[in-house]
Amino acid sequence: ALLAAMEPMHPADIADLLEQLDEGPRHRLIALLGHDFDGEVLSELDEGLREEVIAALSPAVLTDAVRKLESDDVVDLLETLEEPQKEAILGSLTRPDRIAIERAMSFPDGSAGRLMQREVVTAPEHWTVGDAIDFMRASLDLPEQFYHIVLVDPRYRPIGHVTLGKVMSSDRVTPLRELLEDSFRTIPATQDEEDVAYAFNQYHLISAPVVDDNDRLVGVITIDDAMIVLSEENEEDLLLLAGVGDESIADRTLQIVRQRFPWLLVNLGTAILASLVIAQFEDVLAAVVALAVLMPIVASMGGNAGTQSMTVAVRAIATRDLTGSNAWRVVRREVTAGLLNGVAFAIIIGIVGVIWFGNVLLGVVIALAMVINLVVAGLAGVLLPILLDKAGVDPALASGTFVTTVTDVVGFFAFLGLAGIILL
Amino acid sequence: ALLAAMEPMHPADIADLLEQLDEGPRHRLIALLGHDFDGEVLSELDEGLREEVIAALSPAVLTDAVRKLESDDVVDLLETLEEPQKEAILGSLTRPDRIAIERAMSFPDGSAGRLMQREVVTAPEHWTVGDAIDFMRASLDLPEQFYHIVLVDPRYRPIGHVTLGKVMSSDRVTPLRELLEDSFRTIPATQDEEDVAYAFNQYHLISAPVVDDNDRLVGVITIDDAMIVLSEENEEDLLLLAGVGDESIADRTLQIVRQRFPWLLVNLGTAILASLVIAQFEDVLAAVVALAVLMPIVASMGGNAGTQSMTVAVRAIATRDLTGSNAWRVVRREVTAGLLNGVAFAIIIGIVGVIWFGNVLLGVVIALAMVINLVVAGLAGVLLPILLDKAGVDPALASGTFVTTVTDVVGFFAFLGLAGIILL
Ligand SMILES: [Mg+2]
Ligand SMILES: [Mg+2]
Ligand SMILES: [Mg+2]
Ligand SMILES: [Mg+2]
Ligand SMILES: [Mg+2]
Ligand SMILES: [Mg+2]
Ligand SMILES: [Mg+2]
Ligand SMILES: [Mg+2]
Ligand SMILES: [Mg+2]
Ligand SMILES: [Mg+2]
Ligand SMILES: [Mg+2]
Ligand SMILES: [Mg+2]
Ligand SMILES: [Mg+2]
Repeated sequence: ALLAAMEPMHPADIADLLEQLDEGPRHRLIALLGHDFDGEVLSELDEGLREEVIAALSPAVLTDAVRKLESDDVVDLLETLEEPQKEAILGSLTRPDRIAIERAMSFPDGSAGRLMQREVVTAPEHWTVGDAIDFMRASLDLPEQFYHIVLVDPRYRPIGHVTLGKVMSSDRVTPLRELLEDSFRTIPATQDEEDVAYAFNQYHLISAPVVDDNDRLVGVITIDDAMIVLSEENEEDLLLLAGVGDESIADRTLQIVRQRFPWLLVNLGTAILASLVIAQFEDVLAAVVALAVLMPIVASMGGNAGTQSMTVAVRAIATRDLTGSNAWRVVRREVTAGLLNGVAFAIIIGIVGVIWFGNVLLGVVIALAMVINLVVAGLAGVLLPILLDKAGVDPALASGTFVTTVTDVVGFFAFLGLAGIILL
Repeated sequence: ALLAAMEPMHPADIADLLEQLDEGPRHRLIALLGHDFDGEVLSELDEGLREEVIAALSPAVLTDAVRKLESDDVVDLLETLEEPQKEAILGSLTRPDRIAIERAMSFPDGSAGRLMQREVVTAPEHWTVGDAIDFMRASLDLPEQFYHIVLVDPRYRPIGHVTLGKVMSSDRVTPLRELLEDSFRTIPATQDEEDVAYAFNQYHLISAPVVDDNDRLVGVITIDDAMIVLSEENEEDLLLLAGVGDESIADRTLQIVRQRFPWLLVNLGTAILASLVIAQFEDVLAAVVALAVLMPIVASMGGNAGTQSMTVAVRAIATRDLTGSNAWRVVRREVTAGLLNGVAFAIIIGIVGVIWFGNVLLGVVIALAMVINLVVAGLAGVLLPILLDKAGVDPALASGTFVTTVTDVVGFFAFLGLAGIILL
C-alpha cells in the first residue's frame, strides 16, 4: 500500500522523504523499494546522505539505478562520494559511458565541465530544417531533454544554435543558418560554475554549449542544472554570512557541532578582543556603573548597522551590481547613511540616557559614541566585503566576523573613552 | 563610437550600466541611445530606477520599446510603476494586447497569473506529430521561445504536454498523446510565485501551463522567469535576515536611511531591554568590575550560535526541508549541539577567565553562563523560525531580532545572576 502510494512520487520528493526519516525507517523504506529504487533519487538526495543510502542498496539495484542517469547527474553523484563507492558506480557503467564520465571528472571541481551533459544534438552548418528533422527521426539515442540544435563547423566548433521552436515552424528547405538565435554564447569547460549560473540568469539562457581550450564542442549545460547551482550559491552565501559552512538540515548532531565550532571559536577570539578594550577602562566603569548598563547598546547598534551595510554589499558583489565603477559612490552613500541614522539614534538614545540616569553628560557621551559607531559601521560594512573580494577571498566568508569585531571594538572604545574624558 | 560599442551589448548589461552611472551620465546615455533604446532594458532595470528612466524617454521611444516586449515582461514592468506611467504604457499598446495585459494584472500581485506569458502553443488531444508541424509552419505569431506543445481537451483544459524534441524525433503519424511527458504539472493562476519557483526547482520543470479556477489554460510560465523569482526570493531572505528590506545597490542615500531606520529602531528597543536586565545587577557590577569586562562575551557567543541555528532553520523552511515531520528531530539536534559546543566553550572561556582574573569562581560563573546561553541559543534559533512560520509570519523577517534578544537577555541574566549567587 505504501509502495502504491509512492509510485507516482517524483524522485525529488522521495529524496526529501528519505532525508526527513530517521536512519531506521529510512533503511526500511529503501529495502521496501527494492528494484523500484530510481537512480534520480540519488541525484536529488542531500550530499551528506548519499553514501549512507548507496551503502544500503544492493549492487544489482545500484547498477540499475545508475545506468538510467544522464551523464551530468552521474558526475554530480560521483563528486560527493569516497573512493570505494566511486569505483562501484564507475564499475556498473558501460565502457563508453565510463570513459565519458572519467573525461568529465578530469575538469576541475565546480567547473562548467563538471556541470555539462555530453549528450548534445548537433548539425553541420550547411544543413536545412529538413536535414535536421530527418536526422533526428533517424537517431536512436537523442537526449531526454534538449531545446536547441547546435550548428558546428567541420572542426566541431559551435557557431550558433537554433531553437527547436524555430525549426518546427520553418519550411524544410530553410537553411538552419538563417534561424540562429541572437542570445547564443559558448561556455569554456574550465569556467567556474558560479559564473555559469550568473550567465544563465543574466542572459536568460536555456542551454549553452560548452567548449574546450580549442573551442571544440564538448557538451551542453541546461538551465535546470544552472538553476540548481544558482540556488546552491545563494544558500552558500546565506549560510557563510551566518558563520555556517556547507551544512544541511539532514546532518547529524556531531557533524553540526564540528561544523560550527571553528566559527564560534573565531567569534570567541573577537569577543575577547572587545573585552580587552573594555578592560582598559576598568577605572571609568568602577566610577560610573551606569556605563556598564548602557555599554552594550552602542556596540549592538553598530553591529546591526554594519551587518545591514555588509549584507547589501555582499549580495551586490555576488550579483555583480557592485563593481569597481560604482564602489566609491556606494561607499560614500553608506557613510552618509550611517551619519544620518547615527544622528537620529544619537538624539533618541541621548534623551533615553538623560531620562533614565538623570545625567545630561551621560546622554552626550552615548549620543556621540552612537554617531561615531554608526558611521564606522557603514564604512566597515561596505569596505570590508569590497576589499576581501579584491583580495580574492569570498566576501561572504569573512565579512560578518570582521565587521562586528570592528563595531564592537569601536563601540566600546568610543563610549568608554568619551566617558572617561567627559564624565571623569 | 560609444553607440557602436554598445550595439552588441545584451539589454541586461545595458541595464546594469545604467544602474552604475550617476544620474547625469545616465540621462546623457539614454538621450544618446534615442530610438535604439531597447524595451528589454526596462525589464532588466532595477525596480527603483524604472520610473526615472521611463520619465527620461520620449513618448515615441517608450511606445516602440514597450510594443516589442512579451506580455509577461510588460506585466512585470507595470507592477512597479505609478498610475500616470502605467497609463502611458497601457496607452501605447494595441487594443488586444492592452486587454490581455489588464486581464493578467487582475491576478493577485506575486501570483502565477502575473508571472505567466499568455503566448502558448496548444494542440487538440487527437493531433498527430504531422498535424502539429503543419500547424506551426502555418502560424504567423508563435512565441519567441517555447519548449512544449500543450495538449488541450475540447474545453481548453491542459491534459499534458510534449517536448519539441520528442515531436521532432517522431514520425509524422505518431499521435502526440503517445509522447506525453511524465513530469507534466499545471499551476493554478492564483498560486504564489514563491511556490511556482519551488516547483520549477524541485521538479526541474522547463515550462508549465497555468490554469484558471475552471482548470482552463490561461498561459504558461517558463523556467527563465521562475529562475528570476527564485533568485529574488533568496535575496529577500538574505536581506530580511540582516534587517534590510527590499533594498538595492542603486538606491539613493535617503531611501536607504529610511529603509534601515525601522529595523535599527527595533534593535534599539531590544538593546535597551538587555540594558534593563543588566541594570538589575548594578550592585553586583559595582562589587566586581571584572564582570563588566567579561559580560559581552557570553552574550556575543549566544548571539552567534543562535544566528547559526536560525539561519540553517530559515533556509531549510524556505527549501521545505524542515517540515512538521522532522521538526522535533531538528530541535533535539540543535539543543544537543548547543549543549556540546556550550561545554566546549565553557571549558575554554572558564580557563581564560581564571588565568586573566586569577579567580576560579569567576571562571565557573562564565563557564556555566556559557553552557546555559548556547543551549538557549540552539533552542531559540530553531524554535522561533518554526513557530513564526506556523503563525504565518515570514521566518526570515522577524527571527534575527527575536533570537539575539533572547540570547542577550539570557546571556546577561545568567552571567550576572550566577555572579551574584556565586561571587557575592
Ligand atoms: Mg530536495
Ligand atoms: Mg533537500
Ligand atoms: Mg538533472
Ligand atoms: Mg556539482
Ligand atoms: Mg561556489
Ligand atoms: Mg541535466
Ligand atoms: Mg559564492
Ligand atoms: Mg542587473
Ligand atoms: Mg523575460
Ligand atoms: Mg513580478
Ligand atoms: Mg515573496
Ligand atoms: Mg518570459
Ligand atoms: Mg520568502
